[in-house]
Amino acid sequence: MKRPLILVVNDDGITSRGIFHLVSVMKELGEVVVVAPDSPQSGMGHAITVGDTLRLEESPIFNGIRAFECSGTPADCVKMARHFVLKEDRQPDIVVSGINHGSNTSISVLYSGTMSAAIEGAIEGTPAIGFSLGDFSHNADFSHTTEYVRKITLQVLEKGLPKGVALNVNFPPRRNESLKGVRICRQANAKWVEDFDQRFDPNGRRYFWMVGNFVNFDKGEDNDEWAIANNYVAVVPCQFDLTAHQAIPVLNEEWNILG
Amino acid sequence: MKRPLILVVNDDGITSRGIFHLVSVMKELGEVVVVAPDSPQSGMGHAITVGDTLRLEESPIFNGIRAFECSGTPADCVKMARHFVLKEDRQPDIVVSGINHGSNTSISVLYSGTMSAAIEGAIEGTPAIGFSLGDFSHNADFSHTTEYVRKITLQVLEKGLPKGVALNVNFPPRRNESLKGVRICRQANAKWVEDFDQRFDPNGRRYFWMVGNFVNFDKGEDNDEWAIANNYVAVVPCQFDLTAHQAIPVLNEEWNILG
Repeated sequence: MKRPLILVVNDDGITSRGIFHLVSVMKELGEVVVVAPDSPQSGMGHAITVGDTLRLEESPIFNGIRAFECSGTPADCVKMARHFVLKEDRQPDIVVSGINHGSNTSISVLYSGTMSAAIEGAIEGTPAIGFSLGDFSHNADFSHTTEYVRKITLQVLEKGLPKGVALNVNFPPRRNESLKGVRICRQANAKWVEDFDQRFDPNGRRYFWMVGNFVNFDKGEDNDEWAIANNYVAVVPCQFDLTAHQAIPVLNEEWNILG
Repeated sequence: MKRPLILVVNDDGITSRGIFHLVSVMKELGEVVVVAPDSPQSGMGHAITVGDTLRLEESPIFNGIRAFECSGTPADCVKMARHFVLKEDRQPDIVVSGINHGSNTSISVLYSGTMSAAIEGAIEGTPAIGFSLGDFSHNADFSHTTEYVRKITLQVLEKGLPKGVALNVNFPPRRNESLKGVRICRQANAKWVEDFDQRFDPNGRRYFWMVGNFVNFDKGEDNDEWAIANNYVAVVPCQFDLTAHQAIPVLNEEWNILG
């Protein structure tokens, strides 16, 4: 196979440690182009910039690698990479996103800018992977992810992915024991329960911080939360067809207002 | 059934014509509480506000109806409604979002703030509906939607929805002929092809507008794009489990890096 073109994106911003780690692995595997947000975009979900302008500037921070910082969301970055930065006849062979500082398991996939970039790749028919680490800290240790980031990327480059699918890959935080291996999982049944921490600004006006507690309802062992908790790398194939196909016959049968 | 509590949200902002229309229909069906963004939030997808503060202020604009404007995203609005505005023992019987100025058919469901609010309702186990009209204009005519918004909401209040499902309801723009009825659909296979309109600001610095062209690849008649084009109301049941379950055995069989 000829040297693949690898598009690297993230949601923590172009200066984050996670994207530096991802670029360091990817430059051994192919030609790398980086298009990443110029500031943190965590929790942006699949947001895109409509009704506002976008900026894009070339950045020198990845020594010898073509890189751009974009004022938009992770999804915007993928769109600008495809339709502005790269030529029509030389599009990416794979989109990799991350490595996110913080896990994107379970329901968090919906809120994840990291995964929205990967899914944007899948929409365009390009194999795509979002990588996340279960450690939110700025100085998170990514060293134990290297071998698996490389193996999983090579596997996807070699075998491709089913149509309409992007991978959500989550790593547990570094522990004393080595990672146990890779598990193909489903999204765990869990959610965030929010609370709002009310405060007052120096002018006496009220504001809030959203505080979330993660609650896992899932008793299974075939889901991403179980895998992470047991020191496996969790790989969930994700799709952008949100149709609940199994609900269509239910509604067709139950509803009495259909024409 | 006792008078239901109806939470109304949107993504075009609390002053938009679409939410006024939705409130006018809902106040005939139950007790209404509005929590909506204080400014337009189109294209926000499932974004939430992390790493920044939120504001929430009571608003008098819906004569006699309890209403709040929130500085956050549509998903934030639902979270603040549930966990701050409403009491634990009096949670909404239904969440309705919209009516959006602009259609949210097909792939647009991913980028839709309207639908993220509805899906946020579904995550909490509350029946939820996002309503959108295929007319982006500020002065869009919503009059033909009234009867169907009412019927669909009553149907969901009466029969509930399958677990983990929210409805994406799209109306065609008003035409000379009446709407033909309601169709239960799947999300059409279509996408946006973007272009970037490059301009220069007064300081000579480059900026961009994202311009999208919608391309429909779907030849079927069971999808939302077909329904809208043929003057039906399109109802797509949507889920927040993004797992591509059919891809799990494929990866388990194909990959040779699994432990």
